[in-house]
Amino acid sequence: MTIQSLPTSFVDRHIGARRQADVDTMLKAVGYDSVDGLVDVAVPASIRQETALKLTDALSEVEVLAELRRIAGKNKTAVQMIGQGYYDTVTPPVIRRNILESPAWYTAYTPYQPEISQGRLEALLNFQTMVQDLTALPVANASLLDEATAVAEAVLLMRRANKAKGQNADAKDGRTVLDADCLPQTIAIVKGRAEALGFDVEVADLAKGLPEGAINGIVLQQPGVSGRVWDQSGVISAAKERGALVTVAADLLALTLITPPGEQGADIAVGSTQRFGVPLFFGGPHAAYMAVQKGMERSLPGRLVGVSKDNAGAPAYRLALQTREQHIRREKATSNICTAQALLAIVSSFYAVYHGPDGLKAIAESVHHKTRVLATALTSMGRELVAGSFFDTLTVRVPGKAAKVINAAEARGINLRFIDQDTVGVSIDETTTAATLSAVAVAFGAGPVGDAKGFELPGTVLRTSGYLQHPVFNTHRSETQLVRYIRKLSDRDLALDRTMIPLGSCTMKLNATVEMEAISWPEFASIHPFAPDSQTAGWRELISGLETDLAEITGYDQVSIQPNAGSQGELAGLLAIRGYHHSRGDQQRNVCLIPASAHGTNAASAVLAGMKVVVVATASDGTIDHDDLYAKIEAHKDALSCIMITYPSTHGVYDGDVREVCDAVHSAGGQVYVDGANLNALVGLAQPGKFGGDVSHLNLHKTFCIPHGGGGPGVGPVAAKAHLAPFMPGDANKAAHEAGHGVAISASRFGSAGVLPISWAYVKLMGGEGLTEATKSALLAANYVAARLNEFYPVLYTGESGLVAHECILDLRELTARTGVTAEDVAKRLIDFGFHAPTLAFPVAGTLMVEPTESEDLAEIDRFIDAMITIHAEIEQVAAGDFSLEASPVRNAPHTAAAVVSSDWGRAYPREQAAFPVPSLRQDKYFPPVGRIDGAAGDRNLICSCPPLEDFEN
Amino acid sequence: MTIQSLPTSFVDRHIGARRQADVDTMLKAVGYDSVDGLVDVAVPASIRQETALKLTDALSEVEVLAELRRIAGKNKTAVQMIGQGYYDTVTPPVIRRNILESPAWYTAYTPYQPEISQGRLEALLNFQTMVQDLTALPVANASLLDEATAVAEAVLLMRRANKAKGQNADAKDGRTVLDADCLPQTIAIVKGRAEALGFDVEVADLAKGLPEGAINGIVLQQPGVSGRVWDQSGVISAAKERGALVTVAADLLALTLITPPGEQGADIAVGSTQRFGVPLFFGGPHAAYMAVQKGMERSLPGRLVGVSKDNAGAPAYRLALQTREQHIRREKATSNICTAQALLAIVSSFYAVYHGPDGLKAIAESVHHKTRVLATALTSMGRELVAGSFFDTLTVRVPGKAAKVINAAEARGINLRFIDQDTVGVSIDETTTAATLSAVAVAFGAGPVGDAKGFELPGTVLRTSGYLQHPVFNTHRSETQLVRYIRKLSDRDLALDRTMIPLGSCTMKLNATVEMEAISWPEFASIHPFAPDSQTAGWRELISGLETDLAEITGYDQVSIQPNAGSQGELAGLLAIRGYHHSRGDQQRNVCLIPASAHGTNAASAVLAGMKVVVVATASDGTIDHDDLYAKIEAHKDALSCIMITYPSTHGVYDGDVREVCDAVHSAGGQVYVDGANLNALVGLAQPGKFGGDVSHLNLHKTFCIPHGGGGPGVGPVAAKAHLAPFMPGDANKAAHEAGHGVAISASRFGSAGVLPISWAYVKLMGGEGLTEATKSALLAANYVAARLNEFYPVLYTGESGLVAHECILDLRELTARTGVTAEDVAKRLIDFGFHAPTLAFPVAGTLMVEPTESEDLAEIDRFIDAMITIHAEIEQVAAGDFSLEASPVRNAPHTAAAVVSSDWGRAYPREQAAFPVPSLRQDKYFPPVGRIDGAAGDRNLICSCPPLEDFEN
Repeated sequence: MTIQSLPTSFVDRHIGARRQADVDTMLKAVGYDSVDGLVDVAVPASIRQETALKLTDALSEVEVLAELRRIAGKNKTAVQMIGQGYYDTVTPPVIRRNILESPAWYTAYTPYQPEISQGRLEALLNFQTMVQDLTALPVANASLLDEATAVAEAVLLMRRANKAKGQNADAKDGRTVLDADCLPQTIAIVKGRAEALGFDVEVADLAKGLPEGAINGIVLQQPGVSGRVWDQSGVISAAKERGALVTVAADLLALTLITPPGEQGADIAVGSTQRFGVPLFFGGPHAAYMAVQKGMERSLPGRLVGVSKDNAGAPAYRLALQTREQHIRREKATSNICTAQALLAIVSSFYAVYHGPDGLKAIAESVHHKTRVLATALTSMGRELVAGSFFDTLTVRVPGKAAKVINAAEARGINLRFIDQDTVGVSIDETTTAATLSAVAVAFGAGPVGDAKGFELPGTVLRTSGYLQHPVFNTHRSETQLVRYIRKLSDRDLALDRTMIPLGSCTMKLNATVEMEAISWPEFASIHPFAPDSQTAGWRELISGLETDLAEITGYDQVSIQPNAGSQGELAGLLAIRGYHHSRGDQQRNVCLIPASAHGTNAASAVLAGMKVVVVATASDGTIDHDDLYAKIEAHKDALSCIMITYPSTHGVYDGDVREVCDAVHSAGGQVYVDGANLNALVGLAQPGKFGGDVSHLNLHKTFCIPHGGGGPGVGPVAAKAHLAPFMPGDANKAAHEAGHGVAISASRFGSAGVLPISWAYVKLMGGEGLTEATKSALLAANYVAARLNEFYPVLYTGESGLVAHECILDLRELTARTGVTAEDVAKRLIDFGFHAPTLAFPVAGTLMVEPTESEDLAEIDRFIDAMITIHAEIEQVAAGDFSLEASPVRNAPHTAAAVVSSDWGRAYPREQAAFPVPSLRQDKYFPPVGRIDGAAGDRNLICSCPPLEDFEN
Repeated sequence: MTIQSLPTSFVDRHIGARRQADVDTMLKAVGYDSVDGLVDVAVPASIRQETALKLTDALSEVEVLAELRRIAGKNKTAVQMIGQGYYDTVTPPVIRRNILESPAWYTAYTPYQPEISQGRLEALLNFQTMVQDLTALPVANASLLDEATAVAEAVLLMRRANKAKGQNADAKDGRTVLDADCLPQTIAIVKGRAEALGFDVEVADLAKGLPEGAINGIVLQQPGVSGRVWDQSGVISAAKERGALVTVAADLLALTLITPPGEQGADIAVGSTQRFGVPLFFGGPHAAYMAVQKGMERSLPGRLVGVSKDNAGAPAYRLALQTREQHIRREKATSNICTAQALLAIVSSFYAVYHGPDGLKAIAESVHHKTRVLATALTSMGRELVAGSFFDTLTVRVPGKAAKVINAAEARGINLRFIDQDTVGVSIDETTTAATLSAVAVAFGAGPVGDAKGFELPGTVLRTSGYLQHPVFNTHRSETQLVRYIRKLSDRDLALDRTMIPLGSCTMKLNATVEMEAISWPEFASIHPFAPDSQTAGWRELISGLETDLAEITGYDQVSIQPNAGSQGELAGLLAIRGYHHSRGDQQRNVCLIPASAHGTNAASAVLAGMKVVVVATASDGTIDHDDLYAKIEAHKDALSCIMITYPSTHGVYDGDVREVCDAVHSAGGQVYVDGANLNALVGLAQPGKFGGDVSHLNLHKTFCIPHGGGGPGVGPVAAKAHLAPFMPGDANKAAHEAGHGVAISASRFGSAGVLPISWAYVKLMGGEGLTEATKSALLAANYVAARLNEFYPVLYTGESGLVAHECILDLRELTARTGVTAEDVAKRLIDFGFHAPTLAFPVAGTLMVEPTESEDLAEIDRFIDAMITIHAEIEQVAAGDFSLEASPVRNAPHTAAAVVSSDWGRAYPREQAAFPVPSLRQDKYFPPVGRIDGAAGDRNLICSCPPLEDFEN
């Protein structure tokens, strides 16, 4: 039988403009009779895919949850004591539900518009302060992707800084030395990066002293992967005497008890904040951190939150260093990092806010005590420890019996770390119970545990300095207080739960609740990345299913979801191209062509892949300048590695010549990298793997509904044709590059596995037809915005058809020239209407790029258009001299409640115009907590930790 | 070994003022050296309990969740097709997470302060509109407790209304006739209520016509419990001709397809809205509804949301009929209902908003179609149906084989309804799949199902009228739209996630996230109340554990958690007393003494228990007037049933004479009912069951952390000594009163079972010591507020010690007499500071009653005290003539954004004083969406459905 189907499926819940009447209204404005007619004209016939996507039929929300439950049931939860950079932790339920599971937090965008982001900026500033205090280094960034890649970034930073210092020629060109007690995945990642960039890395036992020869920098781990805690000050000062810089990868929880890297003389500290309340997530996403000594702050990769002032002189937060895609310094880039792990960093910062310094110290003391208890039990029955000075990890010698011990533990539901046939590792964490300790002891052949005897940490490594003294870490001790603090911060921000976020290139669409459900289920969230395969069948089924679906969608042969950000996907793709050329003996092929309009990240990734960037000019219509392209191909014929193009282009247009461009590069022996940033305009209509691409990365946090989380997690899978498959990312936890795999890109095998159920669910809920409908709706919405706003703000680029793709660039340069009103003014004025601004000044300065996405309904899009038209009228009032630019509502935007309520108004326009430019705002009004922020002042005075409370008093 | 414990336990997360420095500050203000010293003086030695609470040691949050997982694992989920008033449904994840699991919704209080409740009032108005439209009756209330008690309320309403009409003497004193096809639990509940009130109830097959004799009113069920759908217009008009009123208990989903009660001539419609997205919850909480014909609206029990205007003339919602405890008309009461099921009503209303009329109809059509499919399969193999005209339920004749069929289905994971050895019921719902239908058919001995043949509903019962045409039901179709609508409404409201709610008598304390976790786990949420015991071991373990713990806490011998509101607990307790007296042949004992200061509910419950209320006077110090008490006891000696006292008294004081009062009543052969409304002042310090009480009800939604949900769910367990145990609530689903049990109080055996994990977790997290600490902290906080505010607003009552209990009454009468500023003005002005008002005018007119609870921290309490002192200064400005009362900020409060931003200000005080009376509000300010609401206008013009959108335009 067939059960009568309901009129509303998930597709109708995901797509905003789904009623025929609304679609007709939009079509009429654009001048088409049907959506298919519009699509047929907008998308060049030469690239349209010939067959519909072959995916399973769309499932309902109930069916998707049932499927996810079934898959989750194939994972086996266990007590996770493997360690090696990943530790079980308690996510306080109040933080999980009100942050990780709250749309007010997870649907927020990166805080580039600081006036509507004060809440998450404060949370990230708390994160920075937490890292600075615990590492005893003065400047920390607002998170990096994972610990291993953070070490790689630190190594690059040391190489740059040492070069800049120029005090010791030997050192600056010297090799990088990693301590042998670093995490294996860290060593693998650093080696992979170094190989591409052509510098030497040596692994040595630094506890025995520095090796001979020129050394650029060293990397230490504290505690080491063996668990060892040691006084590193000797080797650090020895290294510095020889002109080397020093990075310490340190565990933040351990640092509550032991001397922090900053006090031992390190220049840089990095590490993971995972164990501060972030689930294991089968390897990620977790927030890594990086802190540096004074003088290095302006070379920090990633984002840095700073404190500035608003136009009323009140303290206000902003990103002091933005490494937004378009701020990346292209071919001069030193890092390709743009996404951070904001949501996870925020969770970690709230964990510290909740526990405070005393709570964190008590957790650390409890962990250490439990480890001593186990050490006592094991040594008293004759087991030998590799390191007798430890914090939370024991490496135990069990000659020939490792497998037996591991199996005995697993039989008791406990995972230990298999190091080799003679050695087993055990890591203790805040969740470890006495019963577990006894079970571990039994697995080692000892009796149940008793008291701790000995194994106190030596005085030389004990921390004496204080930390987390700021009131924010000493106030919110009751749940009531914490709930209100969380609510207060989220109320300061605008996220998708209150407004459309029409950011061109960012695809801020619905992150459906049902898609988010599974990520916090224990069967997904509590799995250790190095758990045995027998416990992770569910995870692997889900991941492999998603990879297969993404391959079908993109038209490629193979997908790896390992890269945990778009930038990492780019690097993975370029390294695959590099590997391919090298495998054919074409070591000389190292030129990467990049159009001038590309995301800055492209060039940065090419540099990190060891390539030479050659820029191809853009023609006046925004397309690639063919003459220049052919000239550059000819000039670099023998050295041509690849071209990186974005499709549709960063101008939001389906260029008609894409096959031609690909063919030209292929003819010259080059590979084609198609940046999938704009894949939301292609799904179901065209496949990069079929119209010329050899490799692409996708952004699951755009097209595939992983929420932006206020600036991460991102997921950037790499998709490639079969000939590049052998060079796809390998596993950093395997001893060497496995046969048939390339360089590892992320610390863990499946990168940000923890959030993949979101994209998996999205694809299953939509099905091939639904995904295609979404793409068409996104096209319709963008063209509707373009058609309606063109007479007010000319649309800068359209395709040959006169249509845009999924976004449109509004050109304000004429308006600016005529009135002085800038695109930034318009962006800030939109806040008064309750909107997040479109993308500002990318890819063209003086413009706004608007991407409505398929999830916005007609009423919301019209509300946006009306706001833009109202603002246009205000700009014309400036032109007409009704008020001066300086006295105009656009220049004085956004208006805080304090400003419009002030007795002392005296503006050239009424208060109501300032606060309620449209009547519906009178009842439900978002007031930004600060006025326009002075960016220059913030850049001049870099303040990157929580300011004292007095600063906020009037 | 002992694992080092952490410095912070759950007790520290639950209690706000936990630091010694804060405690010392508070003690100093109150004038005591230690908390124990304060407690020893405040609580009379004569009632102090001698031994500490014997409860299991406090568990951590992790341990509690593990325990709950273990218990949940003992429940067995199944496909629930038992029906009988409870149907499986899909709670859309977006609604579950953003309403049911969002503190902005679940921690809100009942919307008595309408200016800070516009969001939930709109959601409840949507509920009313939904019910009105679907039943085709013009006025619906904002929910009742469950369907069975709603029918009982309807029966009482018919009896009152028929008496009021006075048109037919026979009819008005006639019996109430229930159709035999009503739900069994409905019949049991109505019979139980009738027995206490002394009127006759007959059960008859009304499809065969009305029985002879005088009939006050009839109750029909549509569809019947048998599944039968029939044209009831004939019997309805026959009943009306005979002067009877008509109630139809109707299924709202069915009403999308069949003729609604209003169009069939019914006076009243009642029913459950559970299947509109509310989980089965093992029986509750679910929102029942009641809708009535015009002319009956002012007799409606429960709450009614209406539309009025604010002081700027803008439309504004308010409760038009408030049946707050203190508004209950005491001994003249016609209903004791005060709590509703607001949170569940809101979930149901959002379900309708999400699906809209087309979606609901499609769901109903799909349900009906699936039922036809099954009917076709069963009849084609010879099974006979009791009713061939049905919506979703089949009653199938299986002579002698019912158990076999039930077992065969259960073996396939499906629960059917066992009716008798020859009859089985099957109910279909929106979740039923084709595979399930086939499995059911197989259980009946048929093959897999095929197509539907026949069984279309006859034209005579088909609905032709429209419903849910208001835009609110036709706008929010995408999830993005719905999320924003939910957020918009919640942003209009103040709940515990933003401010303390210092409501005296309401105990608005922390509802911890961890306590809320388990309620949405499928193993708890998806269990049918009539599932076989073999599937509900977990539920019963949890419930029995909670009952045992509550007995220990209160000092009673037995507890029943069945009553799903405090009022129902009162009724249960009084019926137990009644049963006890009757069992001893003391039928004449029917006088219930109630002090004048009691909650109105007390008297109302006594009336419903068939008692005669005699009021005992209050002495000038707020205590019971002993002379009057003894005189009343003497006067009613032989007829004395009981006394109902609240302890501590509703004046917030531990009266020293409580044992004396109890002894006096006992000596006269009476029983003592101790109202547990103020149990938060007793837990761990004194036990009502030990200092004189025979029976009490508790409010789990006060002392035991079930959130108020914007006006429900409440849970009101009844606790009694052993001699009353045989009269505790019975099971309405059992054929007759079981031996050893009294009258059933709620439709399902365990009442609002679904939320009991909250209280269970609270008790386990706190342990006996923690619970006692909480009580002491609540005492300290209340006495601190009293001490700090006494010089500004005199504290009306204190005990002999000069101390209050857990709350204090601030007397504004002198201020009002002197300045005209009322307690209401102060309540409204507090909104401008971002506070929810204290309890207004209860128990004494012209006062505010403040209860800070143990969960508020010192800073928040001080913020409240400072606000009150600032307001006092404004009142003195009125006294000093700085501005007139009419022109004062207190009288014009609360101030909306629109008001303070208006160009046309012209007030006697600056805008900043209006909006930012304290500086911290400048950045994080809550503006009420409407100004002060004109209550009188709303009462004059009762508008109880969603107003047209134009009303909101300026």
